[in-house]
Amino acid sequence: MSSDAAEKRVLEAIAERRELVNDALDEDVPMQSPERLYEATRYLLKAGGKRLRPTVALLTAEALADVEPLSVDYHAFPALDGSEIDVMSAATSIEVIQSFTLIHDDIMDDDDLRRGVPAVHKEYDTETAILAGDTLYAKAFELLSETGADPANGLEAVRRLATTCTQICEGQALDIEFEKRTEVLPEEYLEMIELKTAVLYGTAAATAATLMDADEETVAALYRYGIDSGRAFQIQDDVLDLTVPSEKLGKQRGSDLVENKETLITLHARQQGVDVDSLVETDDVDSVSEAEIEAAVAELEAAGSIEYAEAKAEELTANAKDHLEVLPENEARALLGDIADYLITRGY
Amino acid sequence: MSSDAAEKRVLEAIAERRELVNDALDEDVPMQSPERLYEATRYLLKAGGKRLRPTVALLTAEALADVEPLSVDYHAFPALDGSEIDVMSAATSIEVIQSFTLIHDDIMDDDDLRRGVPAVHKEYDTETAILAGDTLYAKAFELLSETGADPANGLEAVRRLATTCTQICEGQALDIEFEKRTEVLPEEYLEMIELKTAVLYGTAAATAATLMDADEETVAALYRYGIDSGRAFQIQDDVLDLTVPSEKLGKQRGSDLVENKETLITLHARQQGVDVDSLVETDDVDSVSEAEIEAAVAELEAAGSIEYAEAKAEELTANAKDHLEVLPENEARALLGDIADYLITRGY
Repeated sequence: MSSDAAEKRVLEAIAERRELVNDALDEDVPMQSPERLYEATRYLLKAGGKRLRPTVALLTAEALADVEPLSVDYHAFPALDGSEIDVMSAATSIEVIQSFTLIHDDIMDDDDLRRGVPAVHKEYDTETAILAGDTLYAKAFELLSETGADPANGLEAVRRLATTCTQICEGQALDIEFEKRTEVLPEEYLEMIELKTAVLYGTAAATAATLMDADEETVAALYRYGIDSGRAFQIQDDVLDLTVPSEKLGKQRGSDLVENKETLITLHARQQGVDVDSLVETDDVDSVSEAEIEAAVAELEAAGSIEYAEAKAEELTANAKDHLEVLPENEARALLGDIADYLITRGY
Repeated sequence: MSSDAAEKRVLEAIAERRELVNDALDEDVPMQSPERLYEATRYLLKAGGKRLRPTVALLTAEALADVEPLSVDYHAFPALDGSEIDVMSAATSIEVIQSFTLIHDDIMDDDDLRRGVPAVHKEYDTETAILAGDTLYAKAFELLSETGADPANGLEAVRRLATTCTQICEGQALDIEFEKRTEVLPEEYLEMIELKTAVLYGTAAATAATLMDADEETVAALYRYGIDSGRAFQIQDDVLDLTVPSEKLGKQRGSDLVENKETLITLHARQQGVDVDSLVETDDVDSVSEAEIEAAVAELEAAGSIEYAEAKAEELTANAKDHLEVLPENEARALLGDIADYLITRGY
């Protein structure tokens, strides 16, 4: 991020849209019968989240329409073909998909906590969590089919979201597979995070652009914006795990190393001849010492692996911002650039 | 079914389309990387099934187009608006959704077997089964968004399928809830099976009709055809569990009673004052005696409960067939009527 002012501006932009997205989610996924199912379906949505993906969708629409940010009702938004669309429904459909994947991922990874609260399968049970995820999955497609956009654009958006969901499943399958493999190449890791994380950022931007009736080239560029910033976001996550103090991180620093989770950093280090498997001998996050983590991080730094990942994230962010050049020059476009920066400069 | 000839005709019609549907499924859900994921995704699809729902979709299109059954390529099918649609993709999308729900239901119910082979979560593992179901879920929407139909019709079909998936989740949630409840009303049971089973039959017929560009009234009638025959199908399943010998049923006769599963029959019997909970004392299907089941069935018969369910199934089937009157009189329409009959006259 170029300045504190820019960071302040982007955090405000995110916070303002988060409120609106939260209200829309509350309406789009209402409480209804059967109660236990819908309570579970709403549980994670209500637990918070930055709503970055819907914010990207909303800003994309504002940039394309070339309107002053937040000056137009997202539920009756002027598309380029003169139609009026509910771009908020498109934005929430992306967040609803994100929420469904988190619920199912937490079952698969048997993670206890998510967003500071028990995971859905812990708060309820596995059956209910599977079903809550499945319900959100359907809700997302319902929302996306009811934006009021030109039907050809609506159908194209549905087709892309469906393909995206397939890719997210493939990414999760690769993630599980990599944990069992002895060797993973950095390129394979980058492909995995593209599928598991980045495609939904790409789809957030591209969905808004398609519904807005932007031309194919613009849609493709905005999709790439999302892909590249989404990949940078994930790489930065891996960097933060090593470089941010535990107190600030909200979990043990270096937990990826303790849990033997491969990242772009460890994969690079292996290629540099670092004995990654011996970096941290302790295999329990609760008993690992700060000194052990410190020594491991120092070794990864000496191998240039952290720098390598940071440089990769920066390169991807620069690419992401280049793709924004298809947009008219305006405040919303600037904010999309700031968000790309924010994804790799955020402290946690 | 009016005659052996009619039964032979409908079984042939189902078998002919099953082959074509199986070929299409093999193409639509191809083997690809990551291999373990796609193996699991294809596993249940390849384990068989009658393909009744896609057959209903295909026959609906043939009846509306008023063509001789099997005389036109399903991948280039003449819609009423002059466009050419891939009605087979619509048909397979319904089967793919059915397959996804079975995979996730088997995890939730911890069922070991499905279609005579181990359930996906038993053959692979729970993580892979969740992910295989999620992948099929996306595939179905991908298929349905690529039929080549008028985009407004395509989007309407997507919207309906999404709503249907929500309803199936609600039905499964109710089914789980009812197992824990002390009292369930017959109306509640009928609503549950409508959501859990019948809506996908309704959607099979309505999806084909929408893509064919049939008018709203016709689509609504065909949806009702599917709903009513789907409900009859489920009620007949409950009847068969009590009336068909174990050898023919492929599982212990009366297993619903042993497992304390409520059905329309037991709910009716309760209303007649039968002490349903004491009908079968044995709570293990492997050790229950034929005599115990025989006595229980006799008591349910004396209460008029089996007859009540059979009459209900017949009434629904008659309604279903009435709804077919929106179609031109032709062989495909006759076959849809025969299928409704078959769903309640089939021996198992």
